[in-house]
Amino acid sequence: MTQDPIRRSTCPISASLEVLGDRWSLLIVRDMLFAGAKTYKQFLASDEKIATNILANRLTTLQQAGIITSEQNPDDGRSLRYRLTNKGLDLLPVLMELSAWGTKYEGGQPPNGILDAWQNDQAGFVKSVRLSNPEF
Amino acid sequence: MTQDPIRRSTCPISASLEVLGDRWSLLIVRDMLFAGAKTYKQFLASDEKIATNILANRLTTLQQAGIITSEQNPDDGRSLRYRLTNKGLDLLPVLMELSAWGTKYEGGQPPNGILDAWQNDQAGFVKSVRLSNPEF
Repeated sequence: MTQDPIRRSTCPISASLEVLGDRWSLLIVRDMLFAGAKTYKQFLASDEKIATNILANRLTTLQQAGIITSEQNPDDGRSLRYRLTNKGLDLLPVLMELSAWGTKYEGGQPPNGILDAWQNDQAGFVKSVRLSNPEF
Repeated sequence: MTQDPIRRSTCPISASLEVLGDRWSLLIVRDMLFAGAKTYKQFLASDEKIATNILANRLTTLQQAGIITSEQNPDDGRSLRYRLTNKGLDLLPVLMELSAWGTKYEGGQPPNGILDAWQNDQAGFVKSVRLSNPEF
């Protein structure tokens, strides 16, 4: 289910940032896209040490925005397993451009070869990441 | 002067999001890149209605991060005029991918033709936007 918020403007950049909210939402999407994170416990294990209350809040917001979806975890019936929707998978180019900028200017260290793969063949890169993140 | 913060991780996506902070920083960069905004008054005039205290805070943060720079306003010696640095101009691909996503999924309405121009020729698009935003 997608929210239908009152927009501050018709600008698509502003609309995106309203939905994404803050850094934590995009870091959760990052962990799903690149680290195969699917569960609450896996999100908590990231280097950035997201607080449990923020994680719970952002998972709810991301689900309301239609960026992720959840189902009962087949390995543990008491917990949920999250997956990116098509809308969530389409955040990949945003994350890759943030990665390129943070590598150039903020001393970030991306996984070996990932930026070259993105910059040499964006369409091919998107395809390969999508293959490892099948949509519900 | 660029800040040298303690990073939560070596991930360049996380590093970028730490510097950019929240939606307002990127909206200020957007207004400089696309609307020619240079002054406090011009930033306040945006549709999103940024609060004065948030604007002042984000301008300081963006300047400390080396994303913008300022000089005395030649039209009004009591105020400052802001400009994007090279580091700030290099946020253009991030903004364009946010624009594409917000247009596709959040009902945002970009200026006519801008997404086509970006998607058809990214290098040419960057060049033309840079020409209208000369670096200090």
